[in-house]
Amino acid sequence: MRVHGIPTRTIQPLPDGSAVEIIDQTLLPHRYELRRLATWQAAAEAIAVMRVRGAPLIGATAGYGLALACNADAADAALHAAAAGLVETRPTAVNLRWAVERMLAKLLPLAPGQRREAAWREAAAICEEDVAQNQAIGRHGREIIRTIHQRKGGAVNVMTHCNAGWLATVDWGTALAPVYAAFEAGLALDVWVSETRPRNQGAALTAWELKQHGVPHTVIADNAAGHLMQQGKVDLVIVGADRVTANGDVANKIGTYLKALAARDNGVPFYVAVPGPTIDFRLTDGAGIPIEQRAAREVTHIAGRDPESEVTEVQLTPDGSPALNPAFDVTPARLVTGLITERGVCAASAAGLRGLYPA
Amino acid sequence: MRVHGIPTRTIQPLPDGSAVEIIDQTLLPHRYELRRLATWQAAAEAIAVMRVRGAPLIGATAGYGLALACNADAADAALHAAAAGLVETRPTAVNLRWAVERMLAKLLPLAPGQRREAAWREAAAICEEDVAQNQAIGRHGREIIRTIHQRKGGAVNVMTHCNAGWLATVDWGTALAPVYAAFEAGLALDVWVSETRPRNQGAALTAWELKQHGVPHTVIADNAAGHLMQQGKVDLVIVGADRVTANGDVANKIGTYLKALAARDNGVPFYVAVPGPTIDFRLTDGAGIPIEQRAAREVTHIAGRDPESEVTEVQLTPDGSPALNPAFDVTPARLVTGLITERGVCAASAAGLRGLYPA
Repeated sequence: MRVHGIPTRTIQPLPDGSAVEIIDQTLLPHRYELRRLATWQAAAEAIAVMRVRGAPLIGATAGYGLALACNADAADAALHAAAAGLVETRPTAVNLRWAVERMLAKLLPLAPGQRREAAWREAAAICEEDVAQNQAIGRHGREIIRTIHQRKGGAVNVMTHCNAGWLATVDWGTALAPVYAAFEAGLALDVWVSETRPRNQGAALTAWELKQHGVPHTVIADNAAGHLMQQGKVDLVIVGADRVTANGDVANKIGTYLKALAARDNGVPFYVAVPGPTIDFRLTDGAGIPIEQRAAREVTHIAGRDPESEVTEVQLTPDGSPALNPAFDVTPARLVTGLITERGVCAASAAGLRGLYPA
Repeated sequence: MRVHGIPTRTIQPLPDGSAVEIIDQTLLPHRYELRRLATWQAAAEAIAVMRVRGAPLIGATAGYGLALACNADAADAALHAAAAGLVETRPTAVNLRWAVERMLAKLLPLAPGQRREAAWREAAAICEEDVAQNQAIGRHGREIIRTIHQRKGGAVNVMTHCNAGWLATVDWGTALAPVYAAFEAGLALDVWVSETRPRNQGAALTAWELKQHGVPHTVIADNAAGHLMQQGKVDLVIVGADRVTANGDVANKIGTYLKALAARDNGVPFYVAVPGPTIDFRLTDGAGIPIEQRAAREVTHIAGRDPESEVTEVQLTPDGSPALNPAFDVTPARLVTGLITERGVCAASAAGLRGLYPA
């Protein structure tokens, strides 16, 4: 999507295969800076501290992480070490494990001397597939928005949570792909952006990318989501996912479950946009999903732009008050109207998923 | 309750009746400063910018506001002007209108020369009644906590939202009165404090007052409330109210409704602590409650303590992204397990309320 009017991707290999370039998302929305990752350790650090985040982009970065590992040492032991180091950075998004396993399955059968070139090619393929999947999600989701638009005869109010936009993927996004597709098709819409404490991916990233692309939007506190639905100001909710289990349960950014409850209570359709690599058929339901616990400091402190235009971190809580920071929650399939996948829209159920993804 | 070990109230008249002293709550938790209000306009400003907040404390401040008005001019016209100026500061909490009407009903029948002394006496009476009501709420709510404690045989995990502690009242609090009463009775408990964006009354005020009083607590992002209930880590929720209508609907800080939905979905009891003056029998249900819309800046910016220990406001959103800031929502009575009043616990229904408050 566009940054300062220029079509941009969130991750790009350098032409000489020496490094990949990412947008450092920890600096947004206040500073737009690219950052080069030249080692798998740098890729792992970028995932761990969330310079890159979003399940699909984490997967893509891990793919390139193994390509970077091949630059240094393509032997089995080195690749296994890099794979382990990448997988342990974040536990909830299944795309990370998926991408690492895919890369290893491609590389390990090859002679070490052939691995480097194959690795860069495979990582690029993961990225291209991500873009294509998201475009397909966009087309399928756009028709949901179109139907509401036709029924309503006015701008469609879409609520989202966290950032499942193009910044969370290589391009287009998952939850926002339908928004961009509808916007490009000329359908009037307005996006409710919940700020998504504690890391404010909504206020910082979703608002930024929608603004860059010219899509009308309004930022709200997470707490306001239910009230707006009660007031009839939300036509549908679309969120992304970090992992969907075989029965359709959805792990996504903390707070997603509350929005799903409010949607159900107010008869608002609640969709989850999810590409194939985010579906974990090995887990029967959401109870098995590991929920990442992040640092308390993300709750007790927050970064923003101070009056001197410097990015500063300020403390919100009294000294000595402890905080807890679970990063994800699980929305039960029963609260999900449908899953928007690259293969079409299905029920959030084992039957729905197996209809699109036969075993 | 205690500040630095010293029993303190949130509002105190000076002995000479020239002013009242409040805690400037906009500076907490980083600075504890008292502030003198010597005119009704200063009282109105303190309510409007939330130096004082919380339905009962707003009522108490409005009561003293009319006493301050009498210091300057006790004629009918002056009192009506002060009453109007005070009432218009904030629309949702019904205690404000209640206190102003009570003061006028007391003062207007008197000769102007008698009004000043009567006004200070009446405002003090409002405060004393608030303290007594909250203590009674504490006793009734403590028994709910005790019952859970006996069944569970361990620390009771209480979740609250916003600040309905002693800082929201003259002393003891509404939602936190049962917590303090249980704590004083030696019942083990731990309080989940949701930060309550956008103004963070949980992270800033509830955490501060619990810490000052030595009550165990943990701050969470608002988004984490549902997940903790899913995990069985919440035994009950107690919140305050800005207005309860005749049928038991509850207007309270934005986000309360989401917690009530999550409590219902997980079988967690959801109580609202509400003193008599917060009940609006003139409104049949919550649809009629005016919901205050506050400045977008409260969403786009946040204040905290910077690395140099200065309180600084930082911007969270991209330049030019609009924000919406409804300050309250309405939790339907059907989601409320019970109302904890100074007269006992009742169902959130017309029958329940009329049982305790006959017409």
